[in-house]
Amino acid sequence: MTLHEQGAAAKQAARVLAIADTAQKNRALSAIADALLENQALWLAANAEDVAAAKQAGMRPAMLDRLTLTPERIAAIADSVRQVIALPDPIGRVDKMETRPNGLIIGRRRVPLGVIAMIYEARPNVTVDAAVLCLKSGNACILRGGKEAIRSNRAAAELMRAALEKSGLPADCVSLVQDTGRETAQELMHLNEYVDVLIPRGGAGLIRTVAREASVPVIRTGEGVCHIYVDRDADIEMGANILYNAKCSRPSVCNAVECLLLHEDTAEAFLKSAVPLLDAKNVELRCDAAALEILGSRAKPATDEDWDAEYDDYILAVRVVRSLDEALDFIAAHSTGHSEAIVTRDYFAAQRFLNEVDAAAVYVNASTRFTDGGEFGLGAEIGISTQKMHARGPMGLDELTSCKYVVYGNGQVR
Amino acid sequence: MTLHEQGAAAKQAARVLAIADTAQKNRALSAIADALLENQALWLAANAEDVAAAKQAGMRPAMLDRLTLTPERIAAIADSVRQVIALPDPIGRVDKMETRPNGLIIGRRRVPLGVIAMIYEARPNVTVDAAVLCLKSGNACILRGGKEAIRSNRAAAELMRAALEKSGLPADCVSLVQDTGRETAQELMHLNEYVDVLIPRGGAGLIRTVAREASVPVIRTGEGVCHIYVDRDADIEMGANILYNAKCSRPSVCNAVECLLLHEDTAEAFLKSAVPLLDAKNVELRCDAAALEILGSRAKPATDEDWDAEYDDYILAVRVVRSLDEALDFIAAHSTGHSEAIVTRDYFAAQRFLNEVDAAAVYVNASTRFTDGGEFGLGAEIGISTQKMHARGPMGLDELTSCKYVVYGNGQVR
Repeated sequence: MTLHEQGAAAKQAARVLAIADTAQKNRALSAIADALLENQALWLAANAEDVAAAKQAGMRPAMLDRLTLTPERIAAIADSVRQVIALPDPIGRVDKMETRPNGLIIGRRRVPLGVIAMIYEARPNVTVDAAVLCLKSGNACILRGGKEAIRSNRAAAELMRAALEKSGLPADCVSLVQDTGRETAQELMHLNEYVDVLIPRGGAGLIRTVAREASVPVIRTGEGVCHIYVDRDADIEMGANILYNAKCSRPSVCNAVECLLLHEDTAEAFLKSAVPLLDAKNVELRCDAAALEILGSRAKPATDEDWDAEYDDYILAVRVVRSLDEALDFIAAHSTGHSEAIVTRDYFAAQRFLNEVDAAAVYVNASTRFTDGGEFGLGAEIGISTQKMHARGPMGLDELTSCKYVVYGNGQVR
Repeated sequence: MTLHEQGAAAKQAARVLAIADTAQKNRALSAIADALLENQALWLAANAEDVAAAKQAGMRPAMLDRLTLTPERIAAIADSVRQVIALPDPIGRVDKMETRPNGLIIGRRRVPLGVIAMIYEARPNVTVDAAVLCLKSGNACILRGGKEAIRSNRAAAELMRAALEKSGLPADCVSLVQDTGRETAQELMHLNEYVDVLIPRGGAGLIRTVAREASVPVIRTGEGVCHIYVDRDADIEMGANILYNAKCSRPSVCNAVECLLLHEDTAEAFLKSAVPLLDAKNVELRCDAAALEILGSRAKPATDEDWDAEYDDYILAVRVVRSLDEALDFIAAHSTGHSEAIVTRDYFAAQRFLNEVDAAAVYVNASTRFTDGGEFGLGAEIGISTQKMHARGPMGLDELTSCKYVVYGNGQVR
């Protein structure tokens, strides 16, 4: 099957899925959860082959861990499928409806986007997570995972397709791109006839390549150069805890902080309180001249690249500013628009930060790590959009929909 | 000033405009309406030069009419600015807000998209319409009109920029691309650093070129291959009126019907009723074999291209189908997803059509001509989106916004 044929099959399946009712979609999701558990031996065996090959190829331990499935992890994945079953179905909801002066009744109804393509890296759980969120929101999906997980992904896709068929929906509602070569990824990025939206998920390099090269509509996700600004009048102990959490609780994720901005009047006191916390994880500090002067040999000088770096590691850029205005300008110039936080006691500074910083999530006195579909109450998340069009911030089921205007007439002409 | 510098200036102005309150934006709009009226001699003189040059170049009368400004048209434009002043400001509206179990208060607030670029053709009123909708929704705009209207557009842009400055907002909230060459349009399509969204407005050729070539996010508008399907059990007289209205009231617009689908059991009776109406405008009928057999010498045979043609003229493609299913399949294959209508007495056929047709607007027993921001109650419209991402159907002020999550904490960490 060519990718073109796969696209056509997905489009055809999407027409059926778009009008499936919630009960039918939930039955299919339930069948998928059952199939993943009942056939886990098969999935684990495929995964073991991927893991063995990755070890042979010298994959880093952290990546190997992400690649590896266990019975516990499969149980957690099946459990997350059941959580999606419990979420309300956005499809068919009428956001607004009114009768116009001429008697036309016009309603705006939520509908699926159609066919969603995903390009992602070596985590086999994404294959199930993405498929399940697409299915619940009435979208067919075309999944293209990394080559390191191809055997695991094939097994998962086959189990899901069989479960779909058993529950009366087309298997082609979910399909996996079998070839993990670059040319096929490129072809998928230009499958405009069939793909309604492409969502890349993975490192900054992947996201940027897709955003630059795709001709199908793209939603950029997960680019996070996040800042914490500690204002002149701030609760320093609270700020130090927030910084420690935002940097160290999980440095590899996109909502971790990468750059600390300090008001000059509070810089010394804040660093005195925060650095001992950061020492526990040996956080490397890359500083401007003013911060260097305070920290001495504990820190390193920053280079120009540090002010735009997404470290995803125990590294933090530190910079001293003279005012809130300077902090706002710096953030406007260097933020990726993901999550930005201010630590302050000053009401007006808090309001200005919330109003003026242009990002998917802006915080006062809380850790940037909360930018997440679960934490925001969306129930699930397919990614965190860092663009402004269509969706911004954590994307749940609603963000996988479009709308159509449904008009009831009795002969009206204009 | 290079286009790059113009983009940077627009981005800077957008930061100021994003936090301007409604009263301030309305004052600027009011100053613009006043300036257009008070300085209309200047605008009319510039327009007269455009019109003279276009006549010399042999522009068609219909196009010349669109290009021409008169005192009455300027009064209407100023009036439409005042209508936008009266519309509610979407910016700052909090769609939802809740307190999470950990005490975080999370709200989703409407914010501007940022910098909106528009590429459009030779209608000088679009320059004002677009700028005014962008301003009210807090967006800076970069306008690139057609070369035929460049003198009119320059005059309008200068008047608006002066009015902005007078009312305390940066002139660069509105700027016009001075060079109307293709290279500059291409450069604008790739100004990713500064342009948040590009909205092309004009003929199908322009829209497709922009959608294919731009690397900035695009919203496709106004591609309309619209169908009317007359079901087996239909009110024929009503259907004929709807068809006449949808084809003849304004054939050049995107919500005009281009293709009539007839159930075979009703084809003959319907055409007998509808053709005399269409005769009044000499509508050319391009038919499949079955319709040709009914119409004889009144019609011409259709070619394959006719089934995907956006005529924008007094031409109609006509096709006989055996069932609702065949009509649905045909529409799925040939629709541009703009506006689609069924004429029927059958409840179940109406429901299936509304549910299964994938378009921005789907109608039962009404003319497709109603797909319009004003008719749908949006108050104003910057275009009609035919894509599914971000906005679909008529785009009013709400559709020119994005959102940001605003989070109030008191020290929360994760």
